[in-house]
Amino acid sequence: MSDKTVLDLFESRTSRRRFLRDGGIAALTAGVLTGCKAGAAQPAAAIVQQGAAAGATGGAMGPHDAAAAAAATLASADAMDAMHEKGIKAFPAKTAGLGNQVMHPKLDKGVKVFELTARKTQWETEPGKLVEAWAYNDQVPGPQIRVKEGDRVRIVLHNELPESTAIHFHGLELPNEMDGVPFITQPPVKPGQSYTYEFVVPNAGSHMYHSHHDSTKQVGLGMLGAFIVEPKEKAAHDSVDLDEVLILNDGVHGYTFNGKSFPATQPLVAKLGQKLRIRFMNEGMMIHPMHLHGMHMTIVAKDGWDLPAPWKCDTLNVAPGERWDVIVNCNNPGTWAFHCHILPHAESEHGMFGMVTALVVQK
Amino acid sequence: MSDKTVLDLFESRTSRRRFLRDGGIAALTAGVLTGCKAGAAQPAAAIVQQGAAAGATGGAMGPHDAAAAAAATLASADAMDAMHEKGIKAFPAKTAGLGNQVMHPKLDKGVKVFELTARKTQWETEPGKLVEAWAYNDQVPGPQIRVKEGDRVRIVLHNELPESTAIHFHGLELPNEMDGVPFITQPPVKPGQSYTYEFVVPNAGSHMYHSHHDSTKQVGLGMLGAFIVEPKEKAAHDSVDLDEVLILNDGVHGYTFNGKSFPATQPLVAKLGQKLRIRFMNEGMMIHPMHLHGMHMTIVAKDGWDLPAPWKCDTLNVAPGERWDVIVNCNNPGTWAFHCHILPHAESEHGMFGMVTALVVQK
Amino acid sequence: MSDKTVLDLFESRTSRRRFLRDGGIAALTAGVLTGCKAGAAQPAAAIVQQGAAAGATGGAMGPHDAAAAAAATLASADAMDAMHEKGIKAFPAKTAGLGNQVMHPKLDKGVKVFELTARKTQWETEPGKLVEAWAYNDQVPGPQIRVKEGDRVRIVLHNELPESTAIHFHGLELPNEMDGVPFITQPPVKPGQSYTYEFVVPNAGSHMYHSHHDSTKQVGLGMLGAFIVEPKEKAAHDSVDLDEVLILNDGVHGYTFNGKSFPATQPLVAKLGQKLRIRFMNEGMMIHPMHLHGMHMTIVAKDGWDLPAPWKCDTLNVAPGERWDVIVNCNNPGTWAFHCHILPHAESEHGMFGMVTALVVQK
Repeated sequence: MSDKTVLDLFESRTSRRRFLRDGGIAALTAGVLTGCKAGAAQPAAAIVQQGAAAGATGGAMGPHDAAAAAAATLASADAMDAMHEKGIKAFPAKTAGLGNQVMHPKLDKGVKVFELTARKTQWETEPGKLVEAWAYNDQVPGPQIRVKEGDRVRIVLHNELPESTAIHFHGLELPNEMDGVPFITQPPVKPGQSYTYEFVVPNAGSHMYHSHHDSTKQVGLGMLGAFIVEPKEKAAHDSVDLDEVLILNDGVHGYTFNGKSFPATQPLVAKLGQKLRIRFMNEGMMIHPMHLHGMHMTIVAKDGWDLPAPWKCDTLNVAPGERWDVIVNCNNPGTWAFHCHILPHAESEHGMFGMVTALVVQK
Repeated sequence: MSDKTVLDLFESRTSRRRFLRDGGIAALTAGVLTGCKAGAAQPAAAIVQQGAAAGATGGAMGPHDAAAAAAATLASADAMDAMHEKGIKAFPAKTAGLGNQVMHPKLDKGVKVFELTARKTQWETEPGKLVEAWAYNDQVPGPQIRVKEGDRVRIVLHNELPESTAIHFHGLELPNEMDGVPFITQPPVKPGQSYTYEFVVPNAGSHMYHSHHDSTKQVGLGMLGAFIVEPKEKAAHDSVDLDEVLILNDGVHGYTFNGKSFPATQPLVAKLGQKLRIRFMNEGMMIHPMHLHGMHMTIVAKDGWDLPAPWKCDTLNVAPGERWDVIVNCNNPGTWAFHCHILPHAESEHGMFGMVTALVVQK
Repeated sequence: MSDKTVLDLFESRTSRRRFLRDGGIAALTAGVLTGCKAGAAQPAAAIVQQGAAAGATGGAMGPHDAAAAAAATLASADAMDAMHEKGIKAFPAKTAGLGNQVMHPKLDKGVKVFELTARKTQWETEPGKLVEAWAYNDQVPGPQIRVKEGDRVRIVLHNELPESTAIHFHGLELPNEMDGVPFITQPPVKPGQSYTYEFVVPNAGSHMYHSHHDSTKQVGLGMLGAFIVEPKEKAAHDSVDLDEVLILNDGVHGYTFNGKSFPATQPLVAKLGQKLRIRFMNEGMMIHPMHLHGMHMTIVAKDGWDLPAPWKCDTLNVAPGERWDVIVNCNNPGTWAFHCHILPHAESEHGMFGMVTALVVQK
């Protein structure tokens, strides 16, 4: 979605017309969410009630004092609301760089070759907030690796960092020497060195790759990515219209989805009736209960393994290292908040921030 | 249970007689738990051992020193125990106000109308501890809304707070414009204003309503409640003898169940053989593994959705935003501790506090 | 495994030979893990790249400056790696004392009698790190109690601590007076006193026993243990080759598995093809997502109750008070890292620590 705004994705002449006719659904104009009725358009009756409200918080006041207090309260509320509105109007805010971009391998005699260069970079998590990142190919999360069960793959790691490193393929049941744990399964890859992993992709599912050396720091700074393995034999939930990865993180970069904080998070955009798969992955240090508004999620796989009895929810607890695959039947049109329900990860008195995005279901 | 003590609920002449005959089950007299044999009634043999205990902690001591040390140790233990006993004897302690009280709607041409006034109040979480609350109808949690699938309901929100607000119906799959997210689905409801939500109740189950504006603060201060939707078609677990809601919270009000901290939490009281449904909801910022003593829980629904394969446990992890419905077959008589198993949420050296209550199963 | 090293358990002439032939699997010599190719043996080509790496982090440098910077970076990386290697080579480090040792009961007319003495002791969590522990029979965790469904057991508690205490049998559905909660189901057991619990063991499964008095402190200091009840009727997953208990803790003793921190944690050792049952238990204050490398786990029971629909994962979230039983089919040879995936619980810039162990699958 690098250069598109929500508008580009949401709008079509038809849906736009319908939207304006229906009125209630969030409008998306010029890339911002401004669907609500303007605050200024509130009925005068509500204003009358303000005196009562202010009166309730103070003691005995004359009608003059009460009116002044109500006006002051309203001004204070307006100031807070303006901050909240500004954040939402900025969504999805443009920032430099997008992580989790699907990487196209080179082919070498049937082997899919992925080259990953680990190095320091600057990463913009939200407009104007630049953080130091240690990244694969300058992306946070690193490039999305997407292969098929049974593929032969080669991952070539180039270490341009000032520390040694190594890659662990989290969830893949590989031969031990490909497991990426320095001093247990391989030597550390020193600064300036390269190291090659090569294997036949075993188990399908939503997996990850990340550093397994000085990992609290290295993963915290961005050395992580999705490793998706498509199955040889498809299950019902493998046939979807949209397939999204959502990597949660909470380290020194702040609370992020795919390396970005609200309002720079990317919305998920679906058409009404589409079947959406979301692959949640947590590479942080905290547990995040992800709450989707408006529609439920059917939980179909855990750590890449199909669940024998899929279950439904609207709030899914995702712990560090876990992956959960869910299906959303996008049958409820509108722009739906989608966020971590630990509220201090998602909203402050200055407005929404951090682990907030939206699922846009286009009519 | 506003004016009843555990005694009122537990005791009947028959059960009381049985209880005294059996001896082992916690007696409930004058509203306090005092079922244990008195400490003073311990056998003398135990006292003899104290010298050994004290001796074990020090170096070589004469019999005199050892006896003095043992006495000092015992006095210190007695002092601690007295604090612990005091807390338990005070349970369930009376405090002003009860939250989560079922609200009876007015009927307007077939529409169930619930009026919710948001305003500041003082809330007593435990005896003598008054905190500032931002509450719906002066209750923390707010009034329990209980309706049926397919009902038409109108929720009228009156904002008497010094900030704007809005209500999100957490778990209900509503039309977008009823979703309660300022600047995405509606304007903020300013101080002094009113706002009306009206919809046909969609999916059944254990849901919630809460503020979705400045929510870390507003929900933390009490702007939350249960929204229970009874299903049109009942499942087996919908036929129960008792149906309780337990809302967990952990914000500035401390660790609470339904707005109260131990010893002011309300016990759950069942008769032997009864089938109890508990609807856990977490509106806090932390995850709380709820542990029931004496009996297990069968987990039947998640976020209002029936589980395809109900499972059993005695410790259920409940994350912020989640709802879990469980069934307890109350087949083990007695007074059973029921608490968060993150122990610093439940007990200090001064005794039990916070997230502790009891399930009383009456013979 | 008190006096054995990983070497003793891993090695046989056959497997050793195979291992050396295969090369890639972690060698286990003299009790240490040294399976990787030596860092010094890296190709010169990698060294050439160092200049590029150093150049990337600085500005314009002459070839001389770049070489010096690269050398400094490499020296710094080597120093860090040496710390990491030292920790791994020390694994499994010997420390005084082992907790969770199966306790053999005395028989008294068909009753299995377990005597537990609670007292202060010094506990070595990792080499040279001695902490004050409050322990049962000087073990942290306390002795493992292992009985059968329907057994009559007697637990005699001797309190040699400076505080009162009591034992709660967490997960067992006992008569109320055996539940171990002071002032609710029994008096506190004072310093120097003894107290006897006696009951017919009810429900099977992975349970625990721990203090339920001043529990944040007492459990935090070590007053906890496993209480395993073998079922009368075996399920498929009850027939295993190996049956291990892994008790997680995170209190004042640091991040521990069975009372020890890496590198003093005990590895799990299986032969290729064996079926391993792990009983996870959490007695801490935090949730720990346990990640196994190389193989998945099949989750078969929760809190001692068989799951109706076992599911698979490689990262299992274990909350305080919970028990999860899993089966690992040990079909992937090698030494596999096995750790909490909250990375700051497992690795710092000084190397792995805390909640790290290994599953060794011997060829």
